[in-house]
Amino acid sequence: MKRYAQLAATLGERIEQGLYRPGDRLPSVRALSEEHGVSISTVQQAYRVLEDDGLVEPRPKSGYFVPERRELPPMPAMTRPAQRPVDVSQWDQVLEQVRRAPGGDFVQLGRGTPDIASPSLKPLQRAMVHAARRTDLQSLGYEGIQGSLPLREQIARLMLDSGCQVPPSEIVITTGCQEALAITLRAICEPGDIIAIDSPSFHGAMQALKAYGLKALEIPTDPTNGISLEALELAMEQWPVKLILLTPNCNNPLGYIMPDARKRALLTLAARYDVPILEDDVYGELAYAFPRPRSIKSFDTDDRVLLASSFSKTVAPGLRTGWVVPGRYLDRILHFKYIASGTCAPQPQMALAEFVGGGHYEPHIRRMRAQYQRHRDLMTEWVGRYFPEGARVTRPRGGFMLWVEFDPQFDSVRLNQELRRDNVQVAAGNIFSASGKYRNCIRMNYSNRDLPLIEAAVRKVGACAGRLTAELREQQAEPLPA
Amino acid sequence: MKRYAQLAATLGERIEQGLYRPGDRLPSVRALSEEHGVSISTVQQAYRVLEDDGLVEPRPKSGYFVPERRELPPMPAMTRPAQRPVDVSQWDQVLEQVRRAPGGDFVQLGRGTPDIASPSLKPLQRAMVHAARRTDLQSLGYEGIQGSLPLREQIARLMLDSGCQVPPSEIVITTGCQEALAITLRAICEPGDIIAIDSPSFHGAMQALKAYGLKALEIPTDPTNGISLEALELAMEQWPVKLILLTPNCNNPLGYIMPDARKRALLTLAARYDVPILEDDVYGELAYAFPRPRSIKSFDTDDRVLLASSFSKTVAPGLRTGWVVPGRYLDRILHFKYIASGTCAPQPQMALAEFVGGGHYEPHIRRMRAQYQRHRDLMTEWVGRYFPEGARVTRPRGGFMLWVEFDPQFDSVRLNQELRRDNVQVAAGNIFSASGKYRNCIRMNYSNRDLPLIEAAVRKVGACAGRLTAELREQQAEPLPA
Repeated sequence: MKRYAQLAATLGERIEQGLYRPGDRLPSVRALSEEHGVSISTVQQAYRVLEDDGLVEPRPKSGYFVPERRELPPMPAMTRPAQRPVDVSQWDQVLEQVRRAPGGDFVQLGRGTPDIASPSLKPLQRAMVHAARRTDLQSLGYEGIQGSLPLREQIARLMLDSGCQVPPSEIVITTGCQEALAITLRAICEPGDIIAIDSPSFHGAMQALKAYGLKALEIPTDPTNGISLEALELAMEQWPVKLILLTPNCNNPLGYIMPDARKRALLTLAARYDVPILEDDVYGELAYAFPRPRSIKSFDTDDRVLLASSFSKTVAPGLRTGWVVPGRYLDRILHFKYIASGTCAPQPQMALAEFVGGGHYEPHIRRMRAQYQRHRDLMTEWVGRYFPEGARVTRPRGGFMLWVEFDPQFDSVRLNQELRRDNVQVAAGNIFSASGKYRNCIRMNYSNRDLPLIEAAVRKVGACAGRLTAELREQQAEPLPA
Repeated sequence: MKRYAQLAATLGERIEQGLYRPGDRLPSVRALSEEHGVSISTVQQAYRVLEDDGLVEPRPKSGYFVPERRELPPMPAMTRPAQRPVDVSQWDQVLEQVRRAPGGDFVQLGRGTPDIASPSLKPLQRAMVHAARRTDLQSLGYEGIQGSLPLREQIARLMLDSGCQVPPSEIVITTGCQEALAITLRAICEPGDIIAIDSPSFHGAMQALKAYGLKALEIPTDPTNGISLEALELAMEQWPVKLILLTPNCNNPLGYIMPDARKRALLTLAARYDVPILEDDVYGELAYAFPRPRSIKSFDTDDRVLLASSFSKTVAPGLRTGWVVPGRYLDRILHFKYIASGTCAPQPQMALAEFVGGGHYEPHIRRMRAQYQRHRDLMTEWVGRYFPEGARVTRPRGGFMLWVEFDPQFDSVRLNQELRRDNVQVAAGNIFSASGKYRNCIRMNYSNRDLPLIEAAVRKVGACAGRLTAELREQQAEPLPA
């Protein structure tokens, strides 16, 4: 890298990291030349690069400044899915996303991988080594079907933070949250049953509906407050809903946290129709505000809520360790757990029990929350900078996913196809709908600690989206063929 | 331990290990006294202990001899299950078996755990440590949905030994063989479908039938040759069989290997009715004879056989790493794999690829085959020695499970209850039948390298079974109440 480019990168990084705030005056050309031992013209060249990138603005006779932050892009509106039960589709798109093995130069913004390169995970790697080396060889044998008791004890302790008092004997360890969702759906529902879900909603849960022959009833959802209780009530009046499935905290993909009052109101509604709730809390620990939000389960007084979660987003997905608190369905859940994949692998359970029990979880999660919040701000800014005008962006309150909405005719599937050339992938919005809605939306992951890498990727996505949007607007401007 | 007891243990071990064969004369009292530096009376006391245990017999004026091997206990006859489709029951018994976590003084003869304490697994533990320590952190992230390519390459190579040429692109890694069976059943069948199975049959597969609302059609099975093709043909004439599910090699629980001619005949029969076959090969690599038996899949010319297997019995169950070769069902299998538990944990896949690719698998499996064959002979002998008269025993040709059949009225569920006091558990036979047949049978695991431990356990099982049998015969001898 040339010296001016190097200097530009260093300065750019300081700005990104917030060392210089919007409106701040940046160091003079002379000061930088002295500090870095480079010529005046090298500094000037570096500032020109930053100017081109929109990161600094020159003011005549005053020097260089960090531009005032542009207004945040607008939020998407309340969603409007088809309000009737439908069969789930979109498997091909999901497969495309999960088929590719990791590695190579490919930048995957489409999957829900957290930052696994954080130094705060070093104790986890040590714990995995300890578990592998145990002379009692328990990491090689079969665990009990309910999972490791020491780990369930740690999970019970962690769940106190969400307001839940659950004894370890009521927790069942699963192969990630996906297995928890899948076996719970099987334990409660019969083929043909109707499941009310927030919309957009996690594709893994929806594909499980598809696999089991269940029907999805997508409920309008607000990007700030979550599922519309009014719409849900109307739907429940009209349809025999068997189960309500939702992610109220740090929602995937919208990032909202459902207010506590609405959580309570939802419980009241569910009680009125005597319908159980399956609460996916997999991102709940990653709320940016402290303390973490309460789970719906924590307000549950009549054993109506089944809670599913995992360490896949908070610690590492490769451990494939999740859990479910099945309440009155414990016996059925154990049966479905047994037939789904038998007992869970002991080694990750031992490693997690050591990691959490050794006090390494809390500092790690604090660090991740702060990092993801910082990244949210950055990615929001990049979207504002690089994406075509009119794009709407969520304002996540936790997790590490941004949801972007384009013009109604925008085709995110085509966007992903075009992005192959750029070695970048995003999640196409239609996989978050049972019926393929949200094709004009995308979800992007901002967990990665390599900021220049993801900024470059977002820039490519923005450029490509810009081309597609321009094409679209041109078509719309064209007169209809005679 | 007293000196005479120590000496008795040493001699007993040598006899068990076959250093002295049946009919051999054992060293004289004087020779042993000199060899071990103990008194004549200590040696005499040691021989008395061995005599009590039935391990040596004194012959007047000639010294001590290893007794001629008693005739092997008789084999069970062809099984006679109810030949109509039934709903699967017996979940409570299965749960009892899989609920308990490992550890403590408890001797578990009921579960299918292989010998995980073999020194030939040391390289596996090292490989697990390497995978955990990888600086690219791939053990913490998501794999592709089909599983690790390097591992699939190794599996494709191993499958050549069973006569199968399958490219890595047609293998899907699963969370143990259980997940492979469960997702395959789901991919092929609809609730209400009838599945023909060998009988007795693996409880995990049968419980999956139960969970998915499928009906089991149990086919009479011969403890030497496997499923009766004649009975299967009759059943297929009579019922709309959707799938044939069986374990032809080193069958669990009977231990037979189906002859190749019968494997071919089965394929012809399946082709005539155009029914797919799900072949469980999880014990196939553990055949005592070399080379290992061919799989049915290896004779399959019209893509009719789906093969499921895992490393759980050959290497270590705690890795939870299995696979399925789904043939024409690949797309559906990927969908069901995704919704069942998402992608598989990367670390065990890396460790296994290193273990197998590094040439450690073959010597390990050779060693295990020899060990399990030796243990089969020992456990058969112990059953002959400690079990009540009339017990029938299988003659497994691979794997590490012995199946014992008692009097028709014998209750193995009660046996297991009584054995709790002895801290021993066996597998009650009724969990191997959809309708709870074989309650007069048990399955015992002989993989454990701690021979005195399992001999003591078998002795306890035999004593308890003897009491129950005596009670039974007394009842039968009693005149009917007036």
